[in-house]
Amino acid sequence: MIGQLNHVAIAVPDLEIATKFYKNTLGANVSDALELPDHGVKTVFVKLQNTKIELLEPIDSSSPISKFLHEHPNGGIHHICYQVEDIKSAISKLVKEGARVLGTGKPDIGAHGKPVIFLHPKDCLGTLVELEEA
Amino acid sequence: MIGQLNHVAIAVPDLEIATKFYKNTLGANVSDALELPDHGVKTVFVKLQNTKIELLEPIDSSSPISKFLHEHPNGGIHHICYQVEDIKSAISKLVKEGARVLGTGKPDIGAHGKPVIFLHPKDCLGTLVELEEA
Repeated sequence: MIGQLNHVAIAVPDLEIATKFYKNTLGANVSDALELPDHGVKTVFVKLQNTKIELLEPIDSSSPISKFLHEHPNGGIHHICYQVEDIKSAISKLVKEGARVLGTGKPDIGAHGKPVIFLHPKDCLGTLVELEEA
Repeated sequence: MIGQLNHVAIAVPDLEIATKFYKNTLGANVSDALELPDHGVKTVFVKLQNTKIELLEPIDSSSPISKFLHEHPNGGIHHICYQVEDIKSAISKLVKEGARVLGTGKPDIGAHGKPVIFLHPKDCLGTLVELEEA
């Protein structure tokens, strides 16, 4: 069912410092910063040869990333995102297997303008997993 | 400097349950379990189209993964690994930029039989980063 690893999302307390680390220290190709008010974050994409790293800084304290950073003040990996071909059939399969879909249980439109869901970390080996329709 | 994302490593308390989750619930292609006594882990590779997820279960309580699982009993993302072409020149650049290489500061032979280093999470946005010579 799952296809490519779409991205690994890293929550960071300071996007400018994080971007400099990936650009200058690790020598990676990074995008400009992009504000996504609907998702409560400012983001920079690190473009690797085979996938992306998304650096996420909360826009304000109501951002879902803020609570995570409160618990992980240096930052940390927030979630991983796998692509699926058909998100509705993915949800049916997951629910049948006993995995919990967060929120309403129906897809939202994610940061890339495509349908996404998040799965409960306790059902996914302690990791927050996003599925995005490719 | 960094090339492909080589893998994302997820520490898990029970490799059999974790493998079933990726194989049956997420419908991914998984390898057989492989014991790596030198690294204190038993591992299963989840083969995605563009990269790998490595599921890691500690072999015993002296395993470096054991302490992590003590703090994250459900499991969690342990590290991410980027490929580099030349690990010695990568180390020189990183040290010049102020990033700390863990251990002796020199490459070890990693789980794939290639030279690897780990960088201090506090220098890498709160994430444990492995670099592997491609």
